[in-house]
Amino acid sequence: MKKLRGNLVVGQSGGPTAVINQSLVGLVEAALGRDEIDNIYGARHAVKGILAEDFVDLRRQSREALEAVAITPCAALGSVRKKPTDEERRKVFDVFKKNNIRFFFYIGGNDSAETAHLLAEQGKLENYELCAFHVPKTIDNDLQVTDHCPGYGSAARFVAMALTGSDLDNRSLPGIKIDVVMGRKAGFLTAASALARRREDDGPHLIYCPEVIFNEDRFIADVDTIYKKLGRCVIAVSEGIHRADGTEIGATGEVDSHGNVQLSGSGALGDYLTSMIKKRLGEKLRVRADTLGYLQRSFPGVVSATDAEEARRVGRVAVAEAMREGGPSGGSIALRRTPGVVYNCETFVTELANVAKNTRSMPPAFLEGDNGVTSAFIDYARPLAGSLPAKGMLDLTRVKL
Amino acid sequence: MKKLRGNLVVGQSGGPTAVINQSLVGLVEAALGRDEIDNIYGARHAVKGILAEDFVDLRRQSREALEAVAITPCAALGSVRKKPTDEERRKVFDVFKKNNIRFFFYIGGNDSAETAHLLAEQGKLENYELCAFHVPKTIDNDLQVTDHCPGYGSAARFVAMALTGSDLDNRSLPGIKIDVVMGRKAGFLTAASALARRREDDGPHLIYCPEVIFNEDRFIADVDTIYKKLGRCVIAVSEGIHRADGTEIGATGEVDSHGNVQLSGSGALGDYLTSMIKKRLGEKLRVRADTLGYLQRSFPGVVSATDAEEARRVGRVAVAEAMREGGPSGGSIALRRTPGVVYNCETFVTELANVAKNTRSMPPAFLEGDNGVTSAFIDYARPLAGSLPAKGMLDLTRVKL
Repeated sequence: MKKLRGNLVVGQSGGPTAVINQSLVGLVEAALGRDEIDNIYGARHAVKGILAEDFVDLRRQSREALEAVAITPCAALGSVRKKPTDEERRKVFDVFKKNNIRFFFYIGGNDSAETAHLLAEQGKLENYELCAFHVPKTIDNDLQVTDHCPGYGSAARFVAMALTGSDLDNRSLPGIKIDVVMGRKAGFLTAASALARRREDDGPHLIYCPEVIFNEDRFIADVDTIYKKLGRCVIAVSEGIHRADGTEIGATGEVDSHGNVQLSGSGALGDYLTSMIKKRLGEKLRVRADTLGYLQRSFPGVVSATDAEEARRVGRVAVAEAMREGGPSGGSIALRRTPGVVYNCETFVTELANVAKNTRSMPPAFLEGDNGVTSAFIDYARPLAGSLPAKGMLDLTRVKL
Repeated sequence: MKKLRGNLVVGQSGGPTAVINQSLVGLVEAALGRDEIDNIYGARHAVKGILAEDFVDLRRQSREALEAVAITPCAALGSVRKKPTDEERRKVFDVFKKNNIRFFFYIGGNDSAETAHLLAEQGKLENYELCAFHVPKTIDNDLQVTDHCPGYGSAARFVAMALTGSDLDNRSLPGIKIDVVMGRKAGFLTAASALARRREDDGPHLIYCPEVIFNEDRFIADVDTIYKKLGRCVIAVSEGIHRADGTEIGATGEVDSHGNVQLSGSGALGDYLTSMIKKRLGEKLRVRADTLGYLQRSFPGVVSATDAEEARRVGRVAVAEAMREGGPSGGSIALRRTPGVVYNCETFVTELANVAKNTRSMPPAFLEGDNGVTSAFIDYARPLAGSLPAKGMLDLTRVKL
């Protein structure tokens, strides 16, 4: 097989993360060292920028600028939620052919993998030689095949820190506190709230993942039990919880072009649960809800060092795999843990079809009953989120006067 | 005047902050060195704990435990929102007399200062010699007299970082983003969102403080103008914004014993503004709202170093003032800037009556039009919040193909 040579285009697609730019910079720094790659283009707002030939020159960015971008949250190239139509896929190849684009990298989640897969298939139809790689990123951690997704560790860290604060706040001013966590169909991020617990009575005391049918009667009974026992209750709940009939409790009715329902950017679920608790357990109860919202993916400075390193690495590896003689002409970069006590992951390539479209949920081994997570989950997630800030408590033994 | 000698009780009252425990620890470490003080009691949940004689022994906490508590957000002793009734104030003095409590310190905001003031007045009625000091803390920065309140700097830092993330997220996936910020009557915290701006087109593009009457028509026109110009718009809005007739836009109807309306812990205002924008500017617009909520005061690890140091200092100074020969028998610790280019504050004592009950709002010199803040505000707030994490952006010049 003759060695491919030409221009490269990279896009960042879907919801951003705290470390999505690490992957971009890793990819650029790897590409800068390859003779087979001529221009390194960044597509503004992903496939939308490809269709509009709206590219920026990633060769002319200074090393310092790239390093500053790497530690900045959210997609530096701009992102989009867009699944290209048949017509648009043909148009993409008009652009690719016109500009001799032979290397295509798409940093994103399962929808982005689907787009990369559709474009790879289109390339075969067009008989156009193209390397098409998907570089994983999600905060939801819902990609198939890989042990976990870059982006998840930092978001998990944010959620664990937010719940640490919620628990401390709830100890200060007792009542019932609900924190609504992102994660449409996968509970990994909601489950990460459990990393906030260190002492026996630390919150969150109840964790509701979307993998488990949400039963309102059981929820009320669980809250009541905890509140009666501790005089307070901290609850982490996924935005995607739904009833047995499949209806989502926090849905607003807005749907994107991949068919995803909008759940974030609204306080509806938190307010609904608040009023339900008050109605059924007492209007005078102090019940508060926070929807952690977009801060989970965009807040600067709350980054897991492991996550940042792995995000950088998957970007670099994607280029290395694309360039490797005898290597695959496409695929998605995945992570797997190496055996041993100390956490470590290695990368491998899986086919685009394996990660495109379908998502992964929390395995049953990570879920405990209908409102908790297992120690297996804690062992899984702790190294990804990194060690949390120190926390101190007073000895609150009551003085005998 | 004979030197007072006896036991000390300290309470933490009102909404917690990221550095309220610094003040507690500063106070305890200063008290540990004073012969005039016998026991150092911490009242669990402030005045509620005093009434119940629910005290913890702050002498028996280890140095390491105290230092760990100092860097932990929220009230380590537990807090309460409670204004003692006449009956309860008499009861407090039964407890004080019974236990020879001669030094009373109350860490809190204006409502807490009011409680301290009421108790000091009650002491005079009862002819009971008592030192009563208020140690300032609020995230709202709404205390009278003082240049600023400990607790504000760290909350301002959190808000500035949240808005930095919101702006980057909004650049990634353009649309209209609303962030609802705490601050019932004072816009200092909402205004701190402006610290997120570095480049000309950085958000927040519109800032709505509660000091300015909120006009829905002007709001819609302002959003429309920015959106048409930039293709996106980031808005910071105080939870306390209200119409010309005084009605608060985000109110839920719940009221505490100080007469404060509950505004936080609900997504109502964000959802209301979202639906208003969609109705008037187009249902298809991507509009999202986050209510920053309790994270603003409880999130661990986002602390301004200046704020932490000052919070510690006001605790120490309160004890030193209480012990000073010829010093006041009570008061509130306040901060004032010393002249010079480099930021520095010194402490002084003001009477309890000066900070009790009434709050301070943003001065006109800090407000620009009805949707912005002045550079005078930026100069005021920047040293309090500290320098923010570095942020990098790509050179997005479009490639000529």
